[in-house]
Amino acid sequence: MHTYQQLKDYVNKILSKQTFDKTPKTLFQPIKYILSIGGKRLRPVLTLMSCELFGGNIKDVIYPALGLEIFHNFTLLHDDVMDKSFMRRGRPTVHQKWNSNIAILSGDAMSITSYQYITRCKEKHLSKVLEIFNQTAVEVCQGQQLDMEFEQKGCINIHEYLTMIKHKTAVLFGCSTKIGSILADSPVQEQNRIYDFGVNLGIAFQLQDDYLDSFGDKKVFGKNIGGDILANKKTYLLTKTLETIDSKTKNILKQYLQNHKADNPQKKIDTIIDIYKKMNIDVHIKMEINKYLNKSLKILYQLPIGDNKKNHLLKLINQIEKRNK
Amino acid sequence: MHTYQQLKDYVNKILSKQTFDKTPKTLFQPIKYILSIGGKRLRPVLTLMSCELFGGNIKDVIYPALGLEIFHNFTLLHDDVMDKSFMRRGRPTVHQKWNSNIAILSGDAMSITSYQYITRCKEKHLSKVLEIFNQTAVEVCQGQQLDMEFEQKGCINIHEYLTMIKHKTAVLFGCSTKIGSILADSPVQEQNRIYDFGVNLGIAFQLQDDYLDSFGDKKVFGKNIGGDILANKKTYLLTKTLETIDSKTKNILKQYLQNHKADNPQKKIDTIIDIYKKMNIDVHIKMEINKYLNKSLKILYQLPIGDNKKNHLLKLINQIEKRNK
Repeated sequence: MHTYQQLKDYVNKILSKQTFDKTPKTLFQPIKYILSIGGKRLRPVLTLMSCELFGGNIKDVIYPALGLEIFHNFTLLHDDVMDKSFMRRGRPTVHQKWNSNIAILSGDAMSITSYQYITRCKEKHLSKVLEIFNQTAVEVCQGQQLDMEFEQKGCINIHEYLTMIKHKTAVLFGCSTKIGSILADSPVQEQNRIYDFGVNLGIAFQLQDDYLDSFGDKKVFGKNIGGDILANKKTYLLTKTLETIDSKTKNILKQYLQNHKADNPQKKIDTIIDIYKKMNIDVHIKMEINKYLNKSLKILYQLPIGDNKKNHLLKLINQIEKRNK
Repeated sequence: MHTYQQLKDYVNKILSKQTFDKTPKTLFQPIKYILSIGGKRLRPVLTLMSCELFGGNIKDVIYPALGLEIFHNFTLLHDDVMDKSFMRRGRPTVHQKWNSNIAILSGDAMSITSYQYITRCKEKHLSKVLEIFNQTAVEVCQGQQLDMEFEQKGCINIHEYLTMIKHKTAVLFGCSTKIGSILADSPVQEQNRIYDFGVNLGIAFQLQDDYLDSFGDKKVFGKNIGGDILANKKTYLLTKTLETIDSKTKNILKQYLQNHKADNPQKKIDTIIDIYKKMNIDVHIKMEINKYLNKSLKILYQLPIGDNKKNHLLKLINQIEKRNK
C-alpha cells in the first residue's frame, strides 16, 4: 500500500519515460509539453489506490492509469482552445504556444493515445475497461458542452450546475477508481460502489475548486483570486447566490454580470465576494463539499475490506477537504 | 456475397437506425448531420467485403464497420475546422452551420463514438481490432499534420507526398479491410495481406481524387474543377510537375503559386491545367493510379481463396479505376 505522494511520484516517473517522439514533431511535442507542466495526477493515483484497495498490483494498472491522465490532459487541451484560455498551470496553453490547428490535431492524437494506454491491460478485462471508459469519455464531452451552453444562459439552477460538474469532472474520477477495481479482479458490486465513491469525491473536488477561486489564499492557490467572478462563470457560488438573493442585492450583482468588461476588476471581485460572504455562501459551499465527501466516506467504510487497506484513500479524502491549491 | 451497392445500402440502412439523440442536443446533432449528408461509405463496405471474402457474416461486422465510417467522418469534421472549409458534400460544414467550438467538441464525441462502435465485436477479437485501429487513428492524425505542414513548404517531393496520403487516407482503407478479416477469423498472414491490399487501394483512390479535381467532368464530379489549383494544394499533379518542369514554365507556374488570391481564378486554373497536359502529367498520374491498383489486384489474386469469392472486390477495384465522382 502506498501514499498519495508515493503514487504520484510513481506516475510522474513512468510518465517521464514515455517518449511521444514520433514525427511530425509538431503533432507530438504539444502532448509531451502539456503532460510535463505538472498537475495533481489525481486520476491515475485514484486508479492505483483503488487497485491496491482491492488487492491488485500497481504494476498491472500503471498504463491504464496513465491513459486516464492523458485523456484528462487532452480534454484540458481542447477546452483551452474552446475557452480561448492563454494560461494553464502558469504556462502558455498549447494553442497559445503553437496555434489552434495544432492544438486541435494534437488533442485528437492525444485522445487516441489515451486509448492506446487504457487498453494496455489483461485481455480478460479489456471489454469492461472499455465499456466504462467509452461511457465516461462521452459524458465528459457532454459536461463541457453544458458548461459552454451555461455561459449563454442568464441563469441556471443548482441541479443543472451539479449535472454539469458531475459530467465534466466527477465521472472521470469514478471511471478512474472503477478501472482500478476491475483490474484488481474485484466483485462487480464493489466496482460499482467504488465508482460511486469516485463520483462523489469528484463533485466535492470541483466544488472545492469553485470555493478556492473566490476564497483561496493567492500565495498558496498559485493563481489570481476571482478569475471565475471576472469571467462571469456559472459557479456553485454564483448559482446558489442567485437562488437566494434579495431583489436589491440581485440588481447590484446583475449590473456586474451584464458588464462583460469590468472597468474596475478588483472592485467587481471584492463586491461579489462581499455578497457571497454576507449571504454565507462560503459556509454553505463548505457544507456541500462535506456532504459529498461524507458520501464518499460512507461508501468506503461500507466496503467489506479491512480498515487498514482504506487508510490512504481516507487520507486522500482528508487532503481534498483541506486542500488550498 | 454482396455487391458494393448492396453493402452500401445495408450500411446506410443500419446507420440511419442509429439514434445519436442524447443531450445536450448541440453535441449530438452535428454527428447526425454529417453522417446523414451522404458519402461513398467505402470504408465500411471494404470491411464487409473483406469479411465475406474470408467467409465471415456481415452481421457480425456491421458495428465495427460503422465505427470506421464514424471515425472517417470525425476526421472530416475536424479537418474542415482546420482548413476553414465552408462546404462538404454540397452542404455547409459543421463549424459553418453551428460554430467552431461545437465542431471541435462534437468531433471529440464522434471520435469516442467511433470507439464505441468499433469495440462492438466478439471479445476474442477485441485486442487485435483495437491494436490496428489505434495505430491507424494516430497515423491519420500524422497524415493531416503533414498535409498542413506541406501548405507552408515551398516544395515537396513525390516521396513526401505519397507518405502523406498513405497516412491521411490509405491506412484507414487498410485498417477497414484488416478488421473485416480479423472478425472473419482469417489467418494472421492473410490479415496482413488484405491490409496491404487496402493501403494500395487507398493510395490509388487518393491519386484519383487529385486527378478528378483537375481533369474531372464538372457535371458528374459534383463540384467545381480546379479547387486544388486555386488553393495551391500540394497534389500529386503539382508535385510531379515541379519535379520535371523546365525553368521557363516553372516561372509562370511560380507566379501563380505565389499569388494566393488569383485575380482571374479561371485563368489560373486553365493555365495550370494546360501546363499539366503539355507535360503529360494527366497520363502520368493515370499510370501511377494503375500501378497501385495493380498492386492491390496482385495481392487479391495471390490469396488462397476461391476466385468466385473475389468477384465483388475485383469489381470495386474496377469501379475505383473508372470512377468519375
